[in-house]
Amino acid sequence: MSIFSNSLLELQKSLQNLPGIGEKTAQRLAYFIVNQPYEKSQKLANSVLNAIEKCKPCINCFLLSDTSPCPICSDEQRDDSVLCVVENSKDIVLIENTKEFQGKYFVLGRLLSPFDGIGPNEIRINELNRYLEKNNFKEIIIAIFPSVEGETTIQFIADHVNDKNINITRLSTGIPFGSDIEYTGSTTMLNAFRRRFPV
Amino acid sequence: MSIFSNSLLELQKSLQNLPGIGEKTAQRLAYFIVNQPYEKSQKLANSVLNAIEKCKPCINCFLLSDTSPCPICSDEQRDDSVLCVVENSKDIVLIENTKEFQGKYFVLGRLLSPFDGIGPNEIRINELNRYLEKNNFKEIIIAIFPSVEGETTIQFIADHVNDKNINITRLSTGIPFGSDIEYTGSTTMLNAFRRRFPV
Repeated sequence: MSIFSNSLLELQKSLQNLPGIGEKTAQRLAYFIVNQPYEKSQKLANSVLNAIEKCKPCINCFLLSDTSPCPICSDEQRDDSVLCVVENSKDIVLIENTKEFQGKYFVLGRLLSPFDGIGPNEIRINELNRYLEKNNFKEIIIAIFPSVEGETTIQFIADHVNDKNINITRLSTGIPFGSDIEYTGSTTMLNAFRRRFPV
Repeated sequence: MSIFSNSLLELQKSLQNLPGIGEKTAQRLAYFIVNQPYEKSQKLANSVLNAIEKCKPCINCFLLSDTSPCPICSDEQRDDSVLCVVENSKDIVLIENTKEFQGKYFVLGRLLSPFDGIGPNEIRINELNRYLEKNNFKEIIIAIFPSVEGETTIQFIADHVNDKNINITRLSTGIPFGSDIEYTGSTTMLNAFRRRFPV
């Protein structure tokens, strides 16, 4: 507790609301922020305000972007026959970095998680169906990562896409490149055996 | 890289300047900030601006506080015969929580670290001597934590306090309560042997 400064204590509490930031880290960051040159902290605050002002979900695909439609939806060079469904905007960055996929995207927002109260109404399934109606995709690639919530969500999407003529695929599951066998979970290992392929 | 939004990329870079926040964490925090309700992120930005506006070092002891002189310097109940010298404002919170010390404080700001270019001019040794002149302390407790830089700084203060009649002490070194012997460093163990005391 920064008992000698209410403003510092308030800053600490605001920082503590961020994910992965506990009390100790929030305190350390709060002290750093008031100790560093004024202009640097001012810039930090302004970059928060600027980002929440400018960065919004794209009207079509919900990718966070400073423009709407986003640069991907506006890009006529991209393949409009294949749609990649992801959980979050930042997953798109990861996929774009592979330079493997040239199609369009759709950001679901969250994964189904009944225990956390996230049901079908909390994910963008209706928006996805409306987006599919307005376009002419031949394939949907569900690029959601394997986990309990991920598997549930993948199956839910496959069951609830209205257009039954669209080919629905998902990313391969298996052992990640460069990983250590000791740290590989049993579900990953099971998938790796079941999905083994000829050399 | 958040290649689809400059404002998001800028926010990520600002967050990355904070201590202990790497590229991945900064990205995660930036996405969280633009995804959470607008008012919460606005409050975060405003708490940064408010803290850097209000929270300043006390004119006497350099404790970060919304008032100057700070609440401790203004408190006439406190013992003005003993001064505790600390590295940072947050160390004072830790000491105050013990309810053991009733005297005044002085915040040095940093530790001597010749390899990082932090020499005698970068710590508040002149300010400390001026503060001592204006008061009538009988004892200085140097509450700086043991480390290479800490030991250098403790010795430097002891050598450079102008008033040679003041009694200078430092905090006890030894094995921390509740620690595991396996994880105790050799210098701590050495100190613990050398400073052993009768049961």
